[in-house]
Amino acid sequence: MEHQPPGATERTRLRRLPEKATADRAEVYRVLDAGRLAHVAVVGDRSGRKASLPGLDDPGQPYVVPVAYGRDGDRVLFHGSTGSRLFRALAYGAPTCFTVTLLDGLVLARSAFESSMNYRSVMVLGHCVELAAADKLAALETVSEHLMPGRWADIRPPTSKELAATIVLALPLAECSAKISTGDPTDDPADLDRPTWAGVMPIRTVLGPPVPAADLRAATPAPGYLEDWL
Amino acid sequence: MEHQPPGATERTRLRRLPEKATADRAEVYRVLDAGRLAHVAVVGDRSGRKASLPGLDDPGQPYVVPVAYGRDGDRVLFHGSTGSRLFRALAYGAPTCFTVTLLDGLVLARSAFESSMNYRSVMVLGHCVELAAADKLAALETVSEHLMPGRWADIRPPTSKELAATIVLALPLAECSAKISTGDPTDDPADLDRPTWAGVMPIRTVLGPPVPAADLRAATPAPGYLEDWL
Repeated sequence: MEHQPPGATERTRLRRLPEKATADRAEVYRVLDAGRLAHVAVVGDRSGRKASLPGLDDPGQPYVVPVAYGRDGDRVLFHGSTGSRLFRALAYGAPTCFTVTLLDGLVLARSAFESSMNYRSVMVLGHCVELAAADKLAALETVSEHLMPGRWADIRPPTSKELAATIVLALPLAECSAKISTGDPTDDPADLDRPTWAGVMPIRTVLGPPVPAADLRAATPAPGYLEDWL
Repeated sequence: MEHQPPGATERTRLRRLPEKATADRAEVYRVLDAGRLAHVAVVGDRSGRKASLPGLDDPGQPYVVPVAYGRDGDRVLFHGSTGSRLFRALAYGAPTCFTVTLLDGLVLARSAFESSMNYRSVMVLGHCVELAAADKLAALETVSEHLMPGRWADIRPPTSKELAATIVLALPLAECSAKISTGDPTDDPADLDRPTWAGVMPIRTVLGPPVPAADLRAATPAPGYLEDWL
């Protein structure tokens, strides 16, 4: 049975293994909220919607870069330097794809063909919007609090010069899908009597313990919110 | 100082933070060998090197999909279904970008601006080559042994029908770069006297313990190589 989230379109509809697509936007949110890193594509392409993308002059060549991100309702937020060609192209409205993948386990089937991985993945297609100066600070706080909950109140906020050097992008969750692969291997019935162990090797991400900076003043205690991240 | 790996070109030369680029191909190998998942881009583009890409008819739209991979010398290997439009486009020679990112830690600086992440990332640009039938089996073994060392000898190898349903791609490490961010936050000297804790929250990936499949025959012991993965 094929489930599609509300944001699914012909382009994000899963053609392969549609049983792994998920039915609801809440699942998209759950995956995005559990991740820290997205992989974002930019294409050097003069033939697209925009007549030219500044600095990317190799037509049709995609670039995939890792970005930290946060979510604010129905959009994801991420940021980069005004000196980055790729971020300038995204700010200019280059078509993009924003993918977050969480690897949950190795799936050890009895056959090579059914061996695979358990994962949760979200793909978002669209065009970014560059945030205006007045909206940047709140967006950066959203990203920071997603990655480091409780930290924002402790750190020096950006100066106007630092804000000016930062491109902050919002990508609407308008055209998106989630794909979840979970559970046991699905072996061919003919392989079940093989003497081969089968199952899942779970993969988890573990934080900590915190490592103080070498230039930390001796009297600075580690903040309590770090405990909550472990 | 700017270091560039032997495979660096004008396109993969790091323009931002070039001090994070690394000097040697061995570093590219180390990152690729430590990763399990790559994010690969395909572009729906009729204007590129090839006149048309089968099934991808939205010009300029990139897609980023997660893939498991392995490395064989100076190329990375990965595979997908012949039913996948994206894999057919890659097999057809669509320009691609293959990026592997390992997240190593959250970097807690005293300022929002210097807060960041420690990571190791490799980007490969180029075109994939589809492997001929005679070369598929060895490539699939390479991918399997990268992800699940010792497992290949235990599992049923692919049938000719399964092989025929699998596209196996090789991407040469001809145009590539590594970017490594490691160590303490680099705070502005003016921020060092703030009473804010600073340092790194390490992030690690942890495997296991193995979970036997529900349909596992009772007498099947867990193989010894699973211990080596932990």
